[in-house]
Amino acid sequence: MTSVKAENLSRVRRLVKEAAEQGSKMVLLPECFNSPYGSSFFPTYAEKIPGESTQLLSAVAKENQLYLVGGSIPEEDGGKLYNSCPVFGPDGQMILKHRKIHLFDIDVPGKIRFQESETLSPGNKFSMFETRECRPLLPPVFQKYRENILQLPVTEGCHLLVYPGAFNMTTGPAHWELLQRSRALDNQVFVATASPARDESASYVAWGHSTVVDPWGSVMSKAEAEEMVIYADIDLKFLNDVRQQIPINSQRRRDLYSVSSGQEVTVS
Amino acid sequence: MTSVKAENLSRVRRLVKEAAEQGSKMVLLPECFNSPYGSSFFPTYAEKIPGESTQLLSAVAKENQLYLVGGSIPEEDGGKLYNSCPVFGPDGQMILKHRKIHLFDIDVPGKIRFQESETLSPGNKFSMFETRECRPLLPPVFQKYRENILQLPVTEGCHLLVYPGAFNMTTGPAHWELLQRSRALDNQVFVATASPARDESASYVAWGHSTVVDPWGSVMSKAEAEEMVIYADIDLKFLNDVRQQIPINSQRRRDLYSVSSGQEVTVS
Repeated sequence: MTSVKAENLSRVRRLVKEAAEQGSKMVLLPECFNSPYGSSFFPTYAEKIPGESTQLLSAVAKENQLYLVGGSIPEEDGGKLYNSCPVFGPDGQMILKHRKIHLFDIDVPGKIRFQESETLSPGNKFSMFETRECRPLLPPVFQKYRENILQLPVTEGCHLLVYPGAFNMTTGPAHWELLQRSRALDNQVFVATASPARDESASYVAWGHSTVVDPWGSVMSKAEAEEMVIYADIDLKFLNDVRQQIPINSQRRRDLYSVSSGQEVTVS
Repeated sequence: MTSVKAENLSRVRRLVKEAAEQGSKMVLLPECFNSPYGSSFFPTYAEKIPGESTQLLSAVAKENQLYLVGGSIPEEDGGKLYNSCPVFGPDGQMILKHRKIHLFDIDVPGKIRFQESETLSPGNKFSMFETRECRPLLPPVFQKYRENILQLPVTEGCHLLVYPGAFNMTTGPAHWELLQRSRALDNQVFVATASPARDESASYVAWGHSTVVDPWGSVMSKAEAEEMVIYADIDLKFLNDVRQQIPINSQRRRDLYSVSSGQEVTVS
């Protein structure tokens, strides 16, 4: 990603086309893909939804006939800023708009300080959507659930967590892969993450290394630090096998503890 | 561990003494340390609490003036069998007895099938205890919480998860370290695990590799597959630093989801 929004958008168009030509049915973009990542940039790059960036995403989804999880963009609405992820279907329609629920605050002295909560407002709802089979390689029901990877996942009915995220040079080497593998294993789901590529000259240096992990906790595909497209097949047969082999869901002790959502999770 | 209970118990006496001589204030033994691990062995090796094994643990704790987390032993009570962890104080008193809440069932065709639930009954309460400073190296309040590492941790007020566990040659390489590191990171706690050493001739071949992980998710100390004692200092200053640097606890969205315990968690 660069500091020129138009350039970032044309890069999206080129790379999604490349992924579609490889047979992709769904593409995940990085967090904050149209803007540098940083509190000082959010007000400048923020836009309404619909707006310039989402219009482009809609067109790109339709042109390539695929589901496009639009990473995230700084969104302005009613005087507030959000870190928002719009999702588009193959017809170009926006299926849902997810606003980041857990804003990221970190302060490791001498290493990194970053406080999303200084400028952003949090979202207030969970977002899950469903795709339908359009080719044999795409499973019949393909649901995705997106939420902050550091927090409690709600995975009823979910097969894949999609997580656009920008870890940094402190948390990246320590936690990026660990969190993805553990969320995949804990919930017996696929996990796909997309990070901005590393730019050593940026004020916030992203770790990079977009990754896909399978429900056994194994890394299927992992990018280097620089910009690249990675691919993975989501095999629901394998997912069901894992869930039968170690039936952690039926072993839960709902008499001793419970995890509840303060709102209904609807499937878009 | 061997198939001779008396030999396992004398080994505990020798190894705990060795650990005490190195300055240990608390020692964690492996899961099922007095018996081979397997459904067919549980009825034969099971004993009452108090009984032969816990009498020895009590004496060993007192002799060495330390807290002894007694891994686990097959316990018989009222005609039922439990996988139970007794904990002793430096005065030899039993502080608590934890019965494994989440029985482990796995069935990976061609690799491993093991069903604790065929012979064991599950426990019904959480167990947390507290130790007091007796030397400067031991922090003022040193609380431990034990629960199944595959499941939801309840970590209010807890600094250290102690987990006697016997992973196998299928789950061990894939999940043993991953789960410990993720539980440590997710909850910002220390995690200490103790596994039986690997015995290739046993019917259930344990993975070994007892480990201690810090609240940043980094491995502090890790055993090889064979029998050995490992050591780690539990630094509550470091724990508090990590909790301030990434304040995940205060970032929880209790308006959107909640984790609740069906019972009060009392501190012994």
